[in-house]
Amino acid sequence: MMNPNVSVDCVVFGFDGQNLNVLLIEQKDVGQLRRFALPGDHLEEEEDLDQAAARVLKELTSLRGLYLKQSGAFGDPNRVKNIKDLPWLRSNRRDPGARVITIAYYALVKMEEFNPSASSFAERVFWHDVSNIPELAFDHSDIVVGALNILRQELAELRVGHELLPEKFTLSQMQALHEAILNSSFDKRNFRKKALNDEWVIPLEEKQIGVLHKPARLYTWNKEKTRI
Amino acid sequence: MMNPNVSVDCVVFGFDGQNLNVLLIEQKDVGQLRRFALPGDHLEEEEDLDQAAARVLKELTSLRGLYLKQSGAFGDPNRVKNIKDLPWLRSNRRDPGARVITIAYYALVKMEEFNPSASSFAERVFWHDVSNIPELAFDHSDIVVGALNILRQELAELRVGHELLPEKFTLSQMQALHEAILNSSFDKRNFRKKALNDEWVIPLEEKQIGVLHKPARLYTWNKEKTRI
Repeated sequence: MMNPNVSVDCVVFGFDGQNLNVLLIEQKDVGQLRRFALPGDHLEEEEDLDQAAARVLKELTSLRGLYLKQSGAFGDPNRVKNIKDLPWLRSNRRDPGARVITIAYYALVKMEEFNPSASSFAERVFWHDVSNIPELAFDHSDIVVGALNILRQELAELRVGHELLPEKFTLSQMQALHEAILNSSFDKRNFRKKALNDEWVIPLEEKQIGVLHKPARLYTWNKEKTRI
Repeated sequence: MMNPNVSVDCVVFGFDGQNLNVLLIEQKDVGQLRRFALPGDHLEEEEDLDQAAARVLKELTSLRGLYLKQSGAFGDPNRVKNIKDLPWLRSNRRDPGARVITIAYYALVKMEEFNPSASSFAERVFWHDVSNIPELAFDHSDIVVGALNILRQELAELRVGHELLPEKFTLSQMQALHEAILNSSFDKRNFRKKALNDEWVIPLEEKQIGVLHKPARLYTWNKEKTRI
């Protein structure tokens, strides 16, 4: 049995080495005015929130094995009351006027490692550049912004780097990641200088191999680094 | 009208210059086996989550004006099904067997600035040292641990200091705060050395005034400090 008041929504960020993307579904067309949405659905009666997030993501996009973390709960009383979403709610919900509180989850993946495919009420699933997201159903744009803010904060603390970069990386790769997440561009020399001064970044006595251009030095994260 | 499926719970941390405390209520005695709990209650139909947290905290403890932030959603299907809590649920809930998902909030306050007083179904409200918390109702112990982990993480990034220390502080005060939040004790000399090397901590050309002992140097936070 579904819990009519609580849902989960998943913000899956993917990095392709160049751009930061978010995974969207296109809901089946039932006449609604906005069909793009995050993968999300109601909680089942006997599952906990983490289980629900993993199940829903799998049902709609076929992805499994992602490390999903909560990014916040969204409970505006009007969040599922926009007329643009009404046809979809009427087709898919027993009580289309009911208030729904949603628990948002997010994950970070290397895009090449995951191959989403649509099922259930998703007609299509696709990656979309976060810098230019279309209008989304319900309050899903706010949910993306919330997760992106957490990601940016984690980036500022250099926490997320190792999830999206190879174990050994070049400063150009690191810069591309920062530029994608922060949606800005940095001067190469300044970025290198800051990175080299950063206690989290350790230079290795190794260079890239198998590249056509001049091989760049490789770096890794300082895993031991802790603050006071 | 209450929303039967969703509640909010508040973890209010207070620092008294020496110890880290959490604000607890004692629920009115209706024969339940554990009466200590976090201030929390169901969401009303027309309020959003932040409003609910502020209202509930005010109703039970009379505190207002706190900056409450979400610390997580808790949705174990059995979280309100422990027999120890049943008498309270029977006295206070229309459907005592219903599943409840709760959204947890936390806040950090200087204890001397707030004077809680009990009302509604709270018989008593009191500060309790976090290092030694009694058994709490429902999953409230887990909720405290979750908020404490966030606080410790924020401390590692030196974010929370300015909320709990005066604008100008001594290294001894800073050490007391770290010891209270991390529940450990540090060697004074090592702590000072780390603090002085920390880019977030700025020494001032000022010393304490009006103290009986030898006045210590004052420090402040580097508010401009940002990482890459």
